[in-house]
Amino acid sequence: MPNISTKGLSMPESPIRKLVPFAEAAKKRGINVIHLNIGQPDIKTPQVALDAVKKNSITTLSYSKTEGNDSYRTKLATYYLKHGIEITAEDILVTTGASEGLSFVIGSIADTDDEIIVPEPFYANYNSFSIAFGVNVVPIVSKIETGFALPSIADFENAITAKTKAILICNPNNPTGYLYSEEEIKQLAHLVKKHDLFFIVDEVYREFVYDGKEHYSALKEKNIDDHCIVIDSVSKRYSMCGARIGCVITKNKTLKNTILKFMQARLSPPSYAQIASEAALDTPQEYFDEVIAEYVLRRDTLIQGLNKISGVKVISPQGAFYCIVELPIKDSDTFAQWMLEHFNIANETVMVAPAAGFYATEGLGKNQIRIAYVLDKETLKRAICILEQALKEYRLNED
Amino acid sequence: MPNISTKGLSMPESPIRKLVPFAEAAKKRGINVIHLNIGQPDIKTPQVALDAVKKNSITTLSYSKTEGNDSYRTKLATYYLKHGIEITAEDILVTTGASEGLSFVIGSIADTDDEIIVPEPFYANYNSFSIAFGVNVVPIVSKIETGFALPSIADFENAITAKTKAILICNPNNPTGYLYSEEEIKQLAHLVKKHDLFFIVDEVYREFVYDGKEHYSALKEKNIDDHCIVIDSVSKRYSMCGARIGCVITKNKTLKNTILKFMQARLSPPSYAQIASEAALDTPQEYFDEVIAEYVLRRDTLIQGLNKISGVKVISPQGAFYCIVELPIKDSDTFAQWMLEHFNIANETVMVAPAAGFYATEGLGKNQIRIAYVLDKETLKRAICILEQALKEYRLNED
Repeated sequence: MPNISTKGLSMPESPIRKLVPFAEAAKKRGINVIHLNIGQPDIKTPQVALDAVKKNSITTLSYSKTEGNDSYRTKLATYYLKHGIEITAEDILVTTGASEGLSFVIGSIADTDDEIIVPEPFYANYNSFSIAFGVNVVPIVSKIETGFALPSIADFENAITAKTKAILICNPNNPTGYLYSEEEIKQLAHLVKKHDLFFIVDEVYREFVYDGKEHYSALKEKNIDDHCIVIDSVSKRYSMCGARIGCVITKNKTLKNTILKFMQARLSPPSYAQIASEAALDTPQEYFDEVIAEYVLRRDTLIQGLNKISGVKVISPQGAFYCIVELPIKDSDTFAQWMLEHFNIANETVMVAPAAGFYATEGLGKNQIRIAYVLDKETLKRAICILEQALKEYRLNED
Repeated sequence: MPNISTKGLSMPESPIRKLVPFAEAAKKRGINVIHLNIGQPDIKTPQVALDAVKKNSITTLSYSKTEGNDSYRTKLATYYLKHGIEITAEDILVTTGASEGLSFVIGSIADTDDEIIVPEPFYANYNSFSIAFGVNVVPIVSKIETGFALPSIADFENAITAKTKAILICNPNNPTGYLYSEEEIKQLAHLVKKHDLFFIVDEVYREFVYDGKEHYSALKEKNIDDHCIVIDSVSKRYSMCGARIGCVITKNKTLKNTILKFMQARLSPPSYAQIASEAALDTPQEYFDEVIAEYVLRRDTLIQGLNKISGVKVISPQGAFYCIVELPIKDSDTFAQWMLEHFNIANETVMVAPAAGFYATEGLGKNQIRIAYVLDKETLKRAICILEQALKEYRLNED
């Protein structure tokens, strides 16, 4: 049999992939599995987006423009203007999800053995996109003790080498829920300017910010036009994960033309999804108000519940819809599998994502899990109850 | 400004990209540009596929399964069975277009500096997908004199090195329209088995075969299950280029699990497009009969017309909807641009794809163009007339 590539062998599995068979087996035994492990919201997609697809008048489903339909990019630019971000349609490249966008960005800026600095824990697929291009993620630890705030700039400077091409953050953060402040963004802007690096900011959760906080986009920084790359997506904003529409925003023309070459090779982003995404821009403000209120309710339910469990540590997230939870156990991987295999309350159990998969540093996050609070309040309450009882029972037998 | 990657710099532009501004300028001057340069058929998408999307009952547009919806993969397997190809849903990975499929295959089997052997001229993006992963395409020349038949097996064997990972062909071929015979597929099957290589066959034009010929799928070869990888797509079959749904088919489990890791990182293929693609499998046979008859008519119109032009050489293609045309000029790049800039008949001109972009060997294909006969007969007739006159006029002034 011919060999698989080294790249392919080192490509990580999704942090929850090895749990999937256990979840499936549990379901076969009649157990209802509550999925706290994946960021698939149960929120309805805006009606205006769903309707636009139903009412489409396509007769030949042709390629769209490689960089996305002009009408969509033009309208999308006004969305950013509304949020105080001065960009034009020219600065937007529509991609097949934020995933494709980030992949093409990494390919455009980094060669084999180059490095990208990322505060950890981080969205696990950053690692996959990097490995696919032979690029190394250099992690800088952020800690639950500081609420996963930005590590010190000195930590970043110490990590910069001749091979460093970019600093990558996710704001608000998946998996920590941390919202980087304007001050922290400015510090990083200063740093990338000083060391001539790219600054990649994944802002797909931009609108999911709570407690009256405001999201500060890296695109608002004036002096880093050549450095700044923002990744965005319709997936979470409009609960349209299945559309697979995202975008890359940059004012760096050389970079834009390079990314465009990667985009040309894959021809165009999906056409139906662009119709939905363009229409979604007309979603009324009440939709977002309701969604945010719902997430705040879920977050508060989750955090209050978790805080009542003995030995559990969690920070109330100010953005996105994830949190990292420290558990009074040794190995959350084993615990997560055990819950699926051996535990249930009234034929119901919980699936969580072991946090080790969100760290690049070996050994970190082993007593942590990531929870996505994308389910309704009542389900979350039951999930917390199950988690609490499961922890009690599991700890009795943990060697 | 931070540097672009070497990979990004060496990523080729699409063969027609530099002509695009000239085409746009022509349109601004009121010239109707007939596009023979791109494989975007004007054929209608099957109604059953369009209707399925209009009638969808989605309320939350969620991620689909990473490897594609089970219902789609199951039904797709029966499509192949119907064509005498024995595979199951398990052997199918649904990708975002054939493009993504081939990209993930290359990433899974080849590391930096590894080699993939491809008969040239070849679909230009094979080069882009390879370069993105640092992989080298090793071309073997196929010639217009032999109708672009498979080069001799000795040529392939001479090109095999320790770094060779795969042989890649497109059958029927874009850009030549050549249909590889069962005998040729068997020769290559023997070769990949002998040298323990992967055999990647892009069969997206499988159903576009003419003159009573039959397509012989590499999947019909019995002894190369671990070697054989077929790339497919709905784009051309159902005139659904904008769906962005393709698939990778392989029975090699290790390879499948590796590709799946690349797929997990990008989450899922587009949901609406999967609905369309699944429904398209119910397209009645008459649709295909009509489409094939139409393409035969177009092909015959084109080839007969071209054969009447003095100094033009072309082979009547037996599959797909492209052909490579040799012109009595020195540089088809300059000629193509000249037609857009300086030539028209009754305010109409033609855009063609210079063929050099389909060759990896420097200097080859410079007097050739690729034509896609995806337009109706009358338009093709006008295009041939324009091409003939343009050649006459251009040759008078060619240095």
